[in-house]
Amino acid sequence: MNQYRVLIDANDEKGLVHKVSSIFFNYDLNILSNSEFVDKESNKFFMRSVVEGAVNKKELSDAVATVLPENSSVKVIEPKKKNIIIMATKELHALGDILIRHEAGELEANILAVVSNYNKLESLVEKFDIPYITISHEGLEREEHEQKIIECINAYESVDYIVLAKYMRILTPKFVKAFDEKIMNIHHSFLPAFIGANPYKQAYERGVKIIGATAHFVNNNLDEGPIIAQEVIHINHAYSWKDMQRSGKDVEKVVLSRALKLALEDRIFVYENKTVIF
Amino acid sequence: MNQYRVLIDANDEKGLVHKVSSIFFNYDLNILSNSEFVDKESNKFFMRSVVEGAVNKKELSDAVATVLPENSSVKVIEPKKKNIIIMATKELHALGDILIRHEAGELEANILAVVSNYNKLESLVEKFDIPYITISHEGLEREEHEQKIIECINAYESVDYIVLAKYMRILTPKFVKAFDEKIMNIHHSFLPAFIGANPYKQAYERGVKIIGATAHFVNNNLDEGPIIAQEVIHINHAYSWKDMQRSGKDVEKVVLSRALKLALEDRIFVYENKTVIF
Amino acid sequence: MNQYRVLIDANDEKGLVHKVSSIFFNYDLNILSNSEFVDKESNKFFMRSVVEGAVNKKELSDAVATVLPENSSVKVIEPKKKNIIIMATKELHALGDILIRHEAGELEANILAVVSNYNKLESLVEKFDIPYITISHEGLEREEHEQKIIECINAYESVDYIVLAKYMRILTPKFVKAFDEKIMNIHHSFLPAFIGANPYKQAYERGVKIIGATAHFVNNNLDEGPIIAQEVIHINHAYSWKDMQRSGKDVEKVVLSRALKLALEDRIFVYENKTVIF
Amino acid sequence: MNQYRVLIDANDEKGLVHKVSSIFFNYDLNILSNSEFVDKESNKFFMRSVVEGAVNKKELSDAVATVLPENSSVKVIEPKKKNIIIMATKELHALGDILIRHEAGELEANILAVVSNYNKLESLVEKFDIPYITISHEGLEREEHEQKIIECINAYESVDYIVLAKYMRILTPKFVKAFDEKIMNIHHSFLPAFIGANPYKQAYERGVKIIGATAHFVNNNLDEGPIIAQEVIHINHAYSWKDMQRSGKDVEKVVLSRALKLALEDRIFVYENKTVIF
Repeated sequence: MNQYRVLIDANDEKGLVHKVSSIFFNYDLNILSNSEFVDKESNKFFMRSVVEGAVNKKELSDAVATVLPENSSVKVIEPKKKNIIIMATKELHALGDILIRHEAGELEANILAVVSNYNKLESLVEKFDIPYITISHEGLEREEHEQKIIECINAYESVDYIVLAKYMRILTPKFVKAFDEKIMNIHHSFLPAFIGANPYKQAYERGVKIIGATAHFVNNNLDEGPIIAQEVIHINHAYSWKDMQRSGKDVEKVVLSRALKLALEDRIFVYENKTVIF
Repeated sequence: MNQYRVLIDANDEKGLVHKVSSIFFNYDLNILSNSEFVDKESNKFFMRSVVEGAVNKKELSDAVATVLPENSSVKVIEPKKKNIIIMATKELHALGDILIRHEAGELEANILAVVSNYNKLESLVEKFDIPYITISHEGLEREEHEQKIIECINAYESVDYIVLAKYMRILTPKFVKAFDEKIMNIHHSFLPAFIGANPYKQAYERGVKIIGATAHFVNNNLDEGPIIAQEVIHINHAYSWKDMQRSGKDVEKVVLSRALKLALEDRIFVYENKTVIF
Repeated sequence: MNQYRVLIDANDEKGLVHKVSSIFFNYDLNILSNSEFVDKESNKFFMRSVVEGAVNKKELSDAVATVLPENSSVKVIEPKKKNIIIMATKELHALGDILIRHEAGELEANILAVVSNYNKLESLVEKFDIPYITISHEGLEREEHEQKIIECINAYESVDYIVLAKYMRILTPKFVKAFDEKIMNIHHSFLPAFIGANPYKQAYERGVKIIGATAHFVNNNLDEGPIIAQEVIHINHAYSWKDMQRSGKDVEKVVLSRALKLALEDRIFVYENKTVIF
Repeated sequence: MNQYRVLIDANDEKGLVHKVSSIFFNYDLNILSNSEFVDKESNKFFMRSVVEGAVNKKELSDAVATVLPENSSVKVIEPKKKNIIIMATKELHALGDILIRHEAGELEANILAVVSNYNKLESLVEKFDIPYITISHEGLEREEHEQKIIECINAYESVDYIVLAKYMRILTPKFVKAFDEKIMNIHHSFLPAFIGANPYKQAYERGVKIIGATAHFVNNNLDEGPIIAQEVIHINHAYSWKDMQRSGKDVEKVVLSRALKLALEDRIFVYENKTVIF
């Protein structure tokens, strides 16, 4: 008996749950969990089922597709470790949290490598027997530097997600396009407040009483990709912006790890610059 | 076109979603939302569907029942205001919050009456043109007093829920049994911590850093009925137990109103002294 | 024995706590609680002491002033009810919460009147024996309308705070100036995200996972005054913007009541478009 | 110019702030931050000041003591790394979080060693060049086993705190007494709910909607020492107790690290089985 995650993204119409569950029934699959959502405004139907049984994935996927409207998407996925590459710069809290969770067996992931524009985190990463690749940006045009990273990543056979764990350089549209919907970032603010550079300083100047962090997929517009997870903490007047930054780290690492976990468990659908999360 | 809430509680077996959604399809019902949960440990299946169409409720209910295992429960409910009676003693925060929400049209409820053992809240309640019935416990045995309240409640044709909005007297098993699974209480602590009298004083003595409130259905064992909703707030050493009590009121009213809303929208299943909430 | 709240706002220099506490000691005052904060960046010192004893307020204030640097501010306040006017439009949740707290004796306030541009909330407010004054904006220029409200407010001898409990009209700088640092507003978003109109719709479009509310003093720039309190709740993809709006109401009322309570207890200092809150 | 943390714990009497701040003034010390708390019920005064200047610690401590009532405690501490020993069993999340924070320079601590009754975490800990000492309990009486650990710890010259990062064995009063007020534990529940073994299973059985974790100092009665920090997360009916356990780990590590940070920064006073935290 195997488990399969069935992910459906379709235009809504009457009877979809019935039709899809009929297929599961015909293939003698037991439904372990089932989540559906209909966005009335855009008339979209989303479904994530975890089923148990013995079936050929391609065959099941094709069978489900026959009962869906045109232009639907069906994925049948067997739970297994996904391949991820982490990009970082100099800060270790977000990266460190992922490394520890990985070590603890909490993540369905193989970390293929950590890629950084500095070598500062090398000794930490190598403690965990994970390759650390420094690709310095010094003396390089932005595009040249990114091209080197793209080549580095593409040298791996299969990369499911690229996790920006406080990678502090802006990515060009070309880079983003090369890994469409695969790049996940942690932004150190409660988006859309404080877009751009040094959000903690902005937050300090504005005198906010709450700060936060946002994990999102990266698209062409900086800090404007689909939001996956957000979290906040309360602060007060006694926090300097350095204090905010320090406290913010705890939120950042929690949110990024939570978003990564959702992605690894195939719980995220992206549409219209938003996410549906089951 | 009408909406119906279909609530199913059954022993789990393969194909239930398929079978139930077939019935919906046959009756030309559109599924607006759908939630299922299987408790593997007790092999129980719960489903709440909101469907749209035109159907005879009894007929739909019977049709669904034919595809379920024996000893299942099916309810088909048309959304409409439920009848509630509120019981209070002297404190007005929880009662007041319900009155204001009711006035704002936030609650799917008719408040038939407020019943209290004191007349202290009478002038407030009558501002809202809601009957206030004082049934003093003075000079009465507990059973006599409760008997009077039971008669008062039973004088109403149909009572869906009895909401204890800081009713500060312990109910006997006889009273509880008279309104089985209909009595909802707010307990002023994060249950199961600080069961019993004066939980804020207990919390103060223990030096906790968080206090909370718990809304639950009432069963025979005081403070041990199925939990519906819980919420907490952070406190610190500077809080006296009076301060905790004051701050706790805000949590109490939020939690009770949240639980009441869930009940009024038929989102709660009770089993094994727990709740499933969709 | 009386209680006094002593509020000091001064440029920082060495020995201020010592000098001020010497004055308290000389006047035989017992310190019940004491909070200080130094903003290093702007070299500002803030102190709020609650002292107990018997003293002439003016004398104490003058005595404290003698030990402070020039251009300092000292206030000695005896705890008593402050006079507030509430402004609202059509929504009753935030107003209702204040009315209930007032009725419960939770607020150190006299509500002089509720002023609205509609008569929709009149019957609710009058239940509580509080004057309701409708000043319609229909057929009036904005300045004319505001002038009428200003006159209405100024007819009261002393108004400590004007609370905008979902008053849905933008105020002109003239109005704001007339009641400088006295106007408190609840903005239905987590500022500075979603400034301006219909923040819930903006939040929906952006696909955020958290929504919030912000209580702030009003200054000339809409939604940019000093923030007093903020709170958030988690939401998910299933929330329409109407759902966000509905859920947001609970946050709005909590935050506004919290901010009002802080003001009534003289716990807020304003400087550089920020607040220090003790 | 040095910084000093001055910690005062005294019976309350009028003028303490004045008298202590006079001493600071006389020694030409600048107050960077100042927190006081008076527990009226027990008539206790607590003060934590951070002052800047140049002074002999012993001299300052003695001078402050002269102005305090009898039986007061004064500590003058220069901020520097404290020595800690971590005890763990097999789970790495709480330990791992401390190791990463230590590596990131977030903690004012030297980790002298990790002591465990299993060797499971050895390879992780040694990655960080921290000694890992396995002291198996197999074949030993509880007292014998503890005696070995006591000797191991006492072999270090100075140990400020012993951090139980999911050390899963109950400590005897003898052990606790050997390191009085130095042992900090993370309990995997929101104390005082679910004292004792397998709190997640207890929480599951009770059907709670919130789970939490509690960091506390250890005293003779298991799970009853002074609480330092607590945090919670919301859960729902879909959580098995294994799910609760998994999610609970994130709370546990956050709370333990927060409590440890408070201790390292000398922010905790303990009295009457409670904590005052500045």
